[in-house]
Amino acid sequence: VVTKDKAALWTDGRYFLQAEQQLTSGWSLMRAGNLGVPSRSEWLNGVMAPGSRIGIDPFLFSSDAAEELKEAISQKNHELVYLYDINLVDEIWKESRPKPPNKHVRVHEMKYAGVDVSSKLSSLRSELTNAGSSAIVISMLDEIAWLLNLRGSDIPHSPVMYAYLIVEIDGAKLFIDEAKVNSDVMHYLKNAGIELRPYESILSEIESAAIVNTYKCACDKYFGTAGTVNEKNTEALNGTDGTSCGPSYVYRSSPISLAKAVKNEAELEGMRNSHLRDAAALAQFWTWLEEEISNGVILTEVDVADKLLEFRSKQNGFVDTSFDTISASGANGAIIHYKPEPNSCSVVDAEKLFLLDSGAQFIDGTTDITRTVHFGEPSSWQKECFTRVLQGHIALDQAIFPENYPGFVLDAFARASLWKIGLDYRHGTGHGVGAALNVHEGPQSISFRFGNMTPLLKGMVVSNEPGYYEDHAFGIRIENLLYVKEVSTPNRFGGLDYLGFEKLTYVPIQTKLIDLSIVSAAEIDWLNDYHKQVWEKVSPLLDGPAQEWLWNNTRPLIKH
Amino acid sequence: VVTKDKAALWTDGRYFLQAEQQLTSGWSLMRAGNLGVPSRSEWLNGVMAPGSRIGIDPFLFSSDAAEELKEAISQKNHELVYLYDINLVDEIWKESRPKPPNKHVRVHEMKYAGVDVSSKLSSLRSELTNAGSSAIVISMLDEIAWLLNLRGSDIPHSPVMYAYLIVEIDGAKLFIDEAKVNSDVMHYLKNAGIELRPYESILSEIESAAIVNTYKCACDKYFGTAGTVNEKNTEALNGTDGTSCGPSYVYRSSPISLAKAVKNEAELEGMRNSHLRDAAALAQFWTWLEEEISNGVILTEVDVADKLLEFRSKQNGFVDTSFDTISASGANGAIIHYKPEPNSCSVVDAEKLFLLDSGAQFIDGTTDITRTVHFGEPSSWQKECFTRVLQGHIALDQAIFPENYPGFVLDAFARASLWKIGLDYRHGTGHGVGAALNVHEGPQSISFRFGNMTPLLKGMVVSNEPGYYEDHAFGIRIENLLYVKEVSTPNRFGGLDYLGFEKLTYVPIQTKLIDLSIVSAAEIDWLNDYHKQVWEKVSPLLDGPAQEWLWNNTRPLIKH
Repeated sequence: VVTKDKAALWTDGRYFLQAEQQLTSGWSLMRAGNLGVPSRSEWLNGVMAPGSRIGIDPFLFSSDAAEELKEAISQKNHELVYLYDINLVDEIWKESRPKPPNKHVRVHEMKYAGVDVSSKLSSLRSELTNAGSSAIVISMLDEIAWLLNLRGSDIPHSPVMYAYLIVEIDGAKLFIDEAKVNSDVMHYLKNAGIELRPYESILSEIESAAIVNTYKCACDKYFGTAGTVNEKNTEALNGTDGTSCGPSYVYRSSPISLAKAVKNEAELEGMRNSHLRDAAALAQFWTWLEEEISNGVILTEVDVADKLLEFRSKQNGFVDTSFDTISASGANGAIIHYKPEPNSCSVVDAEKLFLLDSGAQFIDGTTDITRTVHFGEPSSWQKECFTRVLQGHIALDQAIFPENYPGFVLDAFARASLWKIGLDYRHGTGHGVGAALNVHEGPQSISFRFGNMTPLLKGMVVSNEPGYYEDHAFGIRIENLLYVKEVSTPNRFGGLDYLGFEKLTYVPIQTKLIDLSIVSAAEIDWLNDYHKQVWEKVSPLLDGPAQEWLWNNTRPLIKH
Repeated sequence: VVTKDKAALWTDGRYFLQAEQQLTSGWSLMRAGNLGVPSRSEWLNGVMAPGSRIGIDPFLFSSDAAEELKEAISQKNHELVYLYDINLVDEIWKESRPKPPNKHVRVHEMKYAGVDVSSKLSSLRSELTNAGSSAIVISMLDEIAWLLNLRGSDIPHSPVMYAYLIVEIDGAKLFIDEAKVNSDVMHYLKNAGIELRPYESILSEIESAAIVNTYKCACDKYFGTAGTVNEKNTEALNGTDGTSCGPSYVYRSSPISLAKAVKNEAELEGMRNSHLRDAAALAQFWTWLEEEISNGVILTEVDVADKLLEFRSKQNGFVDTSFDTISASGANGAIIHYKPEPNSCSVVDAEKLFLLDSGAQFIDGTTDITRTVHFGEPSSWQKECFTRVLQGHIALDQAIFPENYPGFVLDAFARASLWKIGLDYRHGTGHGVGAALNVHEGPQSISFRFGNMTPLLKGMVVSNEPGYYEDHAFGIRIENLLYVKEVSTPNRFGGLDYLGFEKLTYVPIQTKLIDLSIVSAAEIDWLNDYHKQVWEKVSPLLDGPAQEWLWNNTRPLIKH
């Protein structure tokens, strides 16, 4: 938030350390979630003279967030101004701003997508009809990519393209720069009954469609403010006599979000296959890195991330990394979303913990994995912390729960062992992951943010990534991807399905870091069973030193 | 809900079996929470002709519940009618209705209450002032009893008296039948600055005070509907220019509820002491019962409950049972709130599981304990179920968690072991308990009802009572009372307090029912440590056979 004489940045616990490093002294860092830290609206209400005009870029705010801000700042009679025609940052940037990307769009093959476009459109249209709606405007890029079985590369790491989509009962319009669409894709879209429109024309199109704020203005003008419907899940706006009163909109969460989150068998198969190739690349990478470190080669965090990319890019179907690799030695590991830069990054120190959080976009799936290792002799404190993080990871991995439970119910399982000694971590435990799509997706999550009531459903993919971070010392995180499956329990109380998880990620966890005095027999069994599966699934993809490394790193751990 | 030709009863999973037994064929049983079962308003909207008038007894509905019902049935243009002047059940009952009780009120001594009335009133008045309010109307009987350090016996098991209380900044009025108030209590109240008013005069008094619905009518008449404030936590109703616009009300959850839930040291001391006396009575009782059963004496569930009352009533400071004793043999144990009746109850069967859930009101505290035992040879299935319930009980008992977490976060800990084999129970895991007050109190709970965001606070008392119920076969429940305490963890991540539980209940858990093949070493340690404490704390209050019984039932369990 920038005022005439102040500037403040709000961020959550994942970015406190990074923001401290990156903000200059003119900025105030607002550690959101910490006791006594004001929200943006509280801060605005405190520093601005009553009746101020506060601008936002409406393309960067969800409708909900804008409404909430508007409501909160109205306490001091501030007015929220939607800057549709001018973007103040662009005004400063001027000509130096890079042109928008226009990479080619490709078709996501049916063998990976599992369901064709016309089936997806037809399901969506049923939902529209049930909601009493005749059209939907889709602005979420991954929803457009999923619905049309298209992939793009306009945004690093996310295989999506800049576009808007309007689906009506009898047609669909894709707003996209035509330069991105080659003749094959053009033909494919035509067959699917999708018309192309210029990307910029979306704003003029919404007069007869429904991007919420612009459209609401039109409604308000037409009906007066009584025509405003801004509650979630409201039905189509009708007159009080029950008859329709002209154009109206239905405002609820996108039905595509949930449909996309629940993977079909083809998507799961692609996720499983791509995870095994990813695991093979990681085994080759760790073999290389341990050898280099033991030979005393000096490697920076960036060198290591580059080499990992080299191994991954040799795998079939590799497209991109799925996010900026977090290659973090020692204290950098405590910066939860650390990104090493060539000129400032650290050397990977053999005497410190090394945290590596990385992932790939493959043509058939998306991966996201974190391992934390020590190349030398970890301290007993580091081992205790690592073991408690692992205990949380195992507890979540092994959880079984009745259908219809939201993910937050499982979050405490992943924290319980850390809580026992007064430790915790300032991030959620699990996020949704797309199938050959964005590495972060909703609507489900496994988090201490209790508002998300989305139940965990069979076929959803989630990460399992508890951690522990000691500022200016080290970071630990252990992350696998899982998918939700029905578990065949001996009983089914209440006639319900009982659900659990199946792992997608098969990469060894460093046993050297385990404190044997605090793990249980059941936890050791879990680890040995996991490593047995890693060997069985990944060793056929390897040979030579990498296969030998895998053998050495999947040997059973024995508690004496 | 009774209509001209239909009658339906809604109840939750705790009462399904009981309702099946007790309802005659003219009634429909609505198993609330089960898939496809309509809510009361959905049912009303389905069966009543649009535009019906639906009456409620406004004294038996919270303001929230009435508002919600009113809103829901307005979909079919039904009108909610508040029957202030006539109660349809009373009309049928007529003269045969028993007179309202008018038992004497007594002063709850300072050594048990810990804080005197004037301090409590003064804290409450600070809260009123902070809320911009000048008076509060209190209709919750336990809140009145707690605030005034009074106890009554108008309601079986709950040491409260029928009354209303209005606290203003400069005075307080207690609406109560004067026949209940002897001269000592009269003197006590006068000293505390509390005036007495006839119980019935509360309704006329609310014209100048604030029982919500009646008062809202007055507001609405005065200001039009714009004067209606029915959101929780709204501030005092002011004009849009920010100035006060005459009489108004503040509608939020009672500040007394939370103050009452957080026990002070004197209250905790009373709870600890009364629990030890209760444990002594239970040890005597179990000694007697096991002896009788082994001698082949035929005892009914009611005989057993009566004998338990006899042992309890011999303890110092005994006042009453804290609820109807659930003495349930075999299949009756699956009726979660079973109440045996002399003419229909079962004989306690030595070959079946026996569930005993009972509690007492003492002058210094309130108890609530459940134990499940087998007098003969339990089946391996019964042992597995019992052990999984115990594992849940132990997991909750041992939980450590950061401050500000609501109780529902811990609920899954108590279910996890049952979930592993597809079992569950249809009730919450923990409820609040008053200090020499109601055995059920809010605002905290440990439940799968995720809406209750009240954090668990140091000094709160909660039950820990997971269970498992097999309809028409058996019931298992293991219940201790706990209080929330600060735990001295070796670390305090985030500068937070870490909280855990201390037990109040010290009665052996039957080790014969434990399946040693599924308990962990840590769980056996927990049990042995608990039994050691039971022996140390309770044996000094016993002698003879009861002490011997305690010795035999607290011996360490060894896993081979």
